[in-house]
Amino acid sequence: MAHTGIHSQPVRSCLLLVVVSVWVQQVDGVWPLPQQLDQSADRNSLSPQRFSFIYGRDSAAQTGCSVLDAAFKRYFSIIFPDFTKGSGLLMSENKSIRYTSVSMSVKTRGCDGYPDEDSDESYNLSVSEGQAVLRSVTVWGALRGLESFSQLVYQDDYGSYFINKTEIVDFPRFAFRGLLLDTSRHYLPLHAILKTLDAMAYSKFNVFHWHIVDDPSFPYQSRTFPDLSNKGAFHPFTHVYTQSDVMRVIEHARMRGIRVVPEFDSPGHTLSWGKGQPNLLTPCYKGDVPSGSFGPVDPTVDTTYKFMESLLKEVKFVFPDSYVHLGGDEVSFACWQSNPNVRTFMEKMECLKTKTSIVWQDVFDYRERIPQDTVLEIWKGETYQAELSRMTQAGHRVLLSAPWYINHISYGQDWRNSYAVQPQNFSGTEEQKKLVIGGEVAMWGEYVDATNLNPRLWPRACAAAERLWSDEEKTLDADLAFPRLEKFRCELLRRGIQAEPLFVGHCKHEYDGL
Amino acid sequence: MAHTGIHSQPVRSCLLLVVVSVWVQQVDGVWPLPQQLDQSADRNSLSPQRFSFIYGRDSAAQTGCSVLDAAFKRYFSIIFPDFTKGSGLLMSENKSIRYTSVSMSVKTRGCDGYPDEDSDESYNLSVSEGQAVLRSVTVWGALRGLESFSQLVYQDDYGSYFINKTEIVDFPRFAFRGLLLDTSRHYLPLHAILKTLDAMAYSKFNVFHWHIVDDPSFPYQSRTFPDLSNKGAFHPFTHVYTQSDVMRVIEHARMRGIRVVPEFDSPGHTLSWGKGQPNLLTPCYKGDVPSGSFGPVDPTVDTTYKFMESLLKEVKFVFPDSYVHLGGDEVSFACWQSNPNVRTFMEKMECLKTKTSIVWQDVFDYRERIPQDTVLEIWKGETYQAELSRMTQAGHRVLLSAPWYINHISYGQDWRNSYAVQPQNFSGTEEQKKLVIGGEVAMWGEYVDATNLNPRLWPRACAAAERLWSDEEKTLDADLAFPRLEKFRCELLRRGIQAEPLFVGHCKHEYDGL
Repeated sequence: MAHTGIHSQPVRSCLLLVVVSVWVQQVDGVWPLPQQLDQSADRNSLSPQRFSFIYGRDSAAQTGCSVLDAAFKRYFSIIFPDFTKGSGLLMSENKSIRYTSVSMSVKTRGCDGYPDEDSDESYNLSVSEGQAVLRSVTVWGALRGLESFSQLVYQDDYGSYFINKTEIVDFPRFAFRGLLLDTSRHYLPLHAILKTLDAMAYSKFNVFHWHIVDDPSFPYQSRTFPDLSNKGAFHPFTHVYTQSDVMRVIEHARMRGIRVVPEFDSPGHTLSWGKGQPNLLTPCYKGDVPSGSFGPVDPTVDTTYKFMESLLKEVKFVFPDSYVHLGGDEVSFACWQSNPNVRTFMEKMECLKTKTSIVWQDVFDYRERIPQDTVLEIWKGETYQAELSRMTQAGHRVLLSAPWYINHISYGQDWRNSYAVQPQNFSGTEEQKKLVIGGEVAMWGEYVDATNLNPRLWPRACAAAERLWSDEEKTLDADLAFPRLEKFRCELLRRGIQAEPLFVGHCKHEYDGL
Repeated sequence: MAHTGIHSQPVRSCLLLVVVSVWVQQVDGVWPLPQQLDQSADRNSLSPQRFSFIYGRDSAAQTGCSVLDAAFKRYFSIIFPDFTKGSGLLMSENKSIRYTSVSMSVKTRGCDGYPDEDSDESYNLSVSEGQAVLRSVTVWGALRGLESFSQLVYQDDYGSYFINKTEIVDFPRFAFRGLLLDTSRHYLPLHAILKTLDAMAYSKFNVFHWHIVDDPSFPYQSRTFPDLSNKGAFHPFTHVYTQSDVMRVIEHARMRGIRVVPEFDSPGHTLSWGKGQPNLLTPCYKGDVPSGSFGPVDPTVDTTYKFMESLLKEVKFVFPDSYVHLGGDEVSFACWQSNPNVRTFMEKMECLKTKTSIVWQDVFDYRERIPQDTVLEIWKGETYQAELSRMTQAGHRVLLSAPWYINHISYGQDWRNSYAVQPQNFSGTEEQKKLVIGGEVAMWGEYVDATNLNPRLWPRACAAAERLWSDEEKTLDADLAFPRLEKFRCELLRRGIQAEPLFVGHCKHEYDGL
């Protein structure tokens, strides 16, 4: 028997069944919600046989553009799943359906580059009878537009494809829309990471924050220090990321306009590092004798800095993004002589690297002076508004993650909590608000591995995705968002993402990946 | 970034890595824990080529016994997964490994029957060099013994199979160890149900409580009233259980010694029934006019009882178990004229059916007189100890489910809460304690479908499985149980069950079902 109070009331369930059963008729179901979306009721038929993506004459990107050519292939199958399953042939009989082309027009080249913090992701999409025009400044904006286009297409009860006359003007609210995966507490197989990147692209996330190593294991196979994974991984062969694995992740992400920001958290959270790198960690003492346990990396010996310098050199070489996450959180001072050592250590780290660094908020608490270009990431839950004020007042750019630790599950529709977050709702000047460059959904790995990663991530992470992309004014009401999110979740299922249900109901295409 | 207090302390993680890395050496890892388990350190080699299951001469069951012949086939692959993958051939070279047989000796026949409330599930297992002897009264006991045997076999780091000299005397603490699935709030595909039955057998659950219909949908395809699913299911073809689907579930369960107890919950929770059965539900009124919404089934018209009689006749015919669950919970009196109607209705229901009925505790609250053989199921969380006293005092047999509503997820190791439950720890006589016939893990479907069912069920449900099978005195300490449960969870992964992790760590064979 039921047991969730109001949720199990017949009436409620009824309302819901209605909502679910009519979604195929809904056409304004784009997630995250575009900045401007105008749709008319008149719909145009689409035929898989009479459909194509083309490059506009004025487009800087043309056939041969790696990013878009691949995207056309992906999105055709996404838009016409039944056709790719072969059943679409019937539709070709229907001569009344005219030819439709999606004409891409990209202002700047850059098909072979990587997205970065300054990438322009804006796009304009105009869908009229027989054609759609997608204009963007960059190929990354074109990808966002293709995603929106794919979500506009729907099938009626006879399986015919339609898209309504639509005008979209769209751009992201925040430039940094991240998702963190933790591959140290549990190892995540490569294909789990690649699938997550697929789903991120569907929700318009654009940064994969790869918390790749930590205390429990060191799965990154370093070319400079192979012993780090040989001795620090759960298993030196089955539980590691080879250099080619890492390259695949980076390229898979690039193709979807997603940055890969690696985190090598130090000086704390480095227990697994010590296994393959002797004398790196601070030996803890009981009185005058070593206790056998180890603390953070030892900041008092030069070898530490030589090691860190070589490792960060490699990281800088392997990961093309201009950002690196240096961690710096939760250093256990019990073992360290004193706090200033962290300060010294982090200062030296700053000098070692030549990228923009992100550090956890703890570092801000250790010391007065942090390089002005260092980005602070807020993870401590209770006080995040106060931290936003404090850190932006100090002139630092900040990332908000605290309210989006979605590994912390709870019963019911907890996506609503993520959705209610207002990243710029803190006391501060307009200038300070501008210093909030975005946020991150974090899926820490204490209780998460490949068995439950996807249903915990999706659709729960979609709430933050919309908060970070869309106009807050237009997306404050979670009840209004609900049917659109429910439709998007069904779309995720259809695309093979193991997204869990939001509430009672069903999808036309249920998950069949079991 | 880490964020779970103590769980992210280096020391903790360290301890854990140790625990995980040594589990292959542990040999006392049977879940749920047998009543008596004596193991010696001397281990015997097992060779897939020199291994067989045989029927003892004195066994009532012999070759041709459907239940055991099929079990031998299943368990060989479970015991020698690498061999079935073909890599075991190398081992045949090792002549030093002698022939091993597991000799089955079953006292009574009954290979073609169904398990029931009186089935004897006890077994004795004696493993010595070159042979194992498994004695049981019934084939169902033999299945429990085979499961324990399969958990005793382990591989060393070279892949060789071993089993230690072992003596087990085992029997269940409670006769009724159920697991409830809700296929109305979300539809669960047939293979999701079959897979759940597999995992239930691994944990020695023996009752599948099939909450098959409810307010949101009616997926049961009735032969007498086909419109119930034609109009009441989410979809009349893709979201229904045909008669052959139901038969497959029942047979799959029988082969594993699992009973299938169907629930047709009434008079409340019947909203979906009304779609295919006109005039069944009570029309609600606003003043003098029907409001358009409906309440529970209408107890004031004879047609209701004619309908219920035919439906229950069918249910009795289709489901062989001697139990049926009649529901009876959460009737919304707002719509009904008065409470006594429920009493009348439930009384009439009792007369209609000729099986032992289970009803939710609510029914006990409606009325003074309930047939003495009716089993009451307790689901209201806060007060379950008091309910146990009250209902057993009234002489009723009870099932405890309240503390095991594991659809209610929370962050962290919430299996410990399920594990801490003491079903007979309430004020009452010894006679009263005996009236607790067992308990049920309930996985309600508001937020659960095929995307997240398995990781939410396993290994969380295993805690209740051990509480219901094992000696409470020997299984009070969750910390002692932890490494054994962690090993069992890895074993579930190896068997293809998508069981989520208990904490930081890894398994030799990770889940690769993505």
